[in-house]
Amino acid sequence: MIELYHCADARSFRALWALEELGLDYELHLLPFPPRFKAPEYLEVNPLGTIPAMIDGPTFMTESAAIVQYLVTRYGPSPLAVEVKDPAYGAWLNWLHFGEATLTFPQTLVLRYRVLEPGRLEAAADDYARWFLSRLKHVDRALAGGQEWLCAGRFTAADISVGYALLLANQLKLLGEVAPSIQAYWERLKARPAFQAAKRAQKGELSDILA
Amino acid sequence: MIELYHCADARSFRALWALEELGLDYELHLLPFPPRFKAPEYLEVNPLGTIPAMIDGPTFMTESAAIVQYLVTRYGPSPLAVEVKDPAYGAWLNWLHFGEATLTFPQTLVLRYRVLEPGRLEAAADDYARWFLSRLKHVDRALAGGQEWLCAGRFTAADISVGYALLLANQLKLLGEVAPSIQAYWERLKARPAFQAAKRAQKGELSDILA
Repeated sequence: MIELYHCADARSFRALWALEELGLDYELHLLPFPPRFKAPEYLEVNPLGTIPAMIDGPTFMTESAAIVQYLVTRYGPSPLAVEVKDPAYGAWLNWLHFGEATLTFPQTLVLRYRVLEPGRLEAAADDYARWFLSRLKHVDRALAGGQEWLCAGRFTAADISVGYALLLANQLKLLGEVAPSIQAYWERLKARPAFQAAKRAQKGELSDILA
Repeated sequence: MIELYHCADARSFRALWALEELGLDYELHLLPFPPRFKAPEYLEVNPLGTIPAMIDGPTFMTESAAIVQYLVTRYGPSPLAVEVKDPAYGAWLNWLHFGEATLTFPQTLVLRYRVLEPGRLEAAADDYARWFLSRLKHVDRALAGGQEWLCAGRFTAADISVGYALLLANQLKLLGEVAPSIQAYWERLKARPAFQAAKRAQKGELSDILA
């Protein structure tokens, strides 16, 4: 059975959401945040100390967007994946990476310097909040034609990757001034039964931890 | 023909290196760094202003690790790709993402706050230099058994993704204290004819620009 190590609303939410979308069986290990300090035995599972870790037989993975791609292709065929020969294949791969590398990492600076270590380097948090909001316009442009989802004319793993970035932005109160198209997209994402099942499975939210 | 927008030693080097490994024809557009300020007409190609941009017929991509995955699968079969059914598939995807999301983004803070905007927030540069070196131990662990390459028992796109992070670290003088296994891996990467062809094609280095 697939095992997932998870903290509420951490990047591992992408993997949890994908497991629910696919209807796969899994064993969820819920950890306190940050596990590196509050559950040091986790370092035996993942020496990096980062979340997620996913174990599927001999396969061990730590990158959340990569895990989503793995699950939807290894356990396919699934409409969440886009085939290599599909005209939307390049866009799909791009959004999978964009959701994490471009839209999530900058927010971790906001989390760190605004919430976890306040009063030290808040100007860096401000720099990367602005950086995030400027890159988010790429999502607005993609939805400008009235599309419901980012690519391929349907909900795919790309929406899980970018959707998690919006979940984190919502927790960090960065969604207040974003375009209406992105607000509406975020509402569509939250309405998915698998998103809600993943929320229930994790029991609690990042905002509870940060409160 | 595939078009690639590139700055010397920027993330687009991953795409350039993959094009050379695959022996594909391409048109290279060399831009000054940072293009957002020094070549504002580039915003008409890529409204994000980021490098790379790759155009292949109707496909438009901006995420360097995604472009590498696209090229090696769309223009395959290639030994640079790992098949979905291969036991190394999950590890391969993980390294593709890890090279960018975990090993490159933190270095962009070092570049920004130590080199481009010195004297403002250098403590943030120090935080993320340390952060990068701690995550780099994951590469050392992967090579601990004496393997030449990261996964699948051969050079793959995963090595291009992580290899670029080492190229950037070398330019930022972050490789001085890394493990001998990583030093030797970096030497193997630089020795590849396609790496050297990509270096020649770009005419110049980041260190020239930063000097």
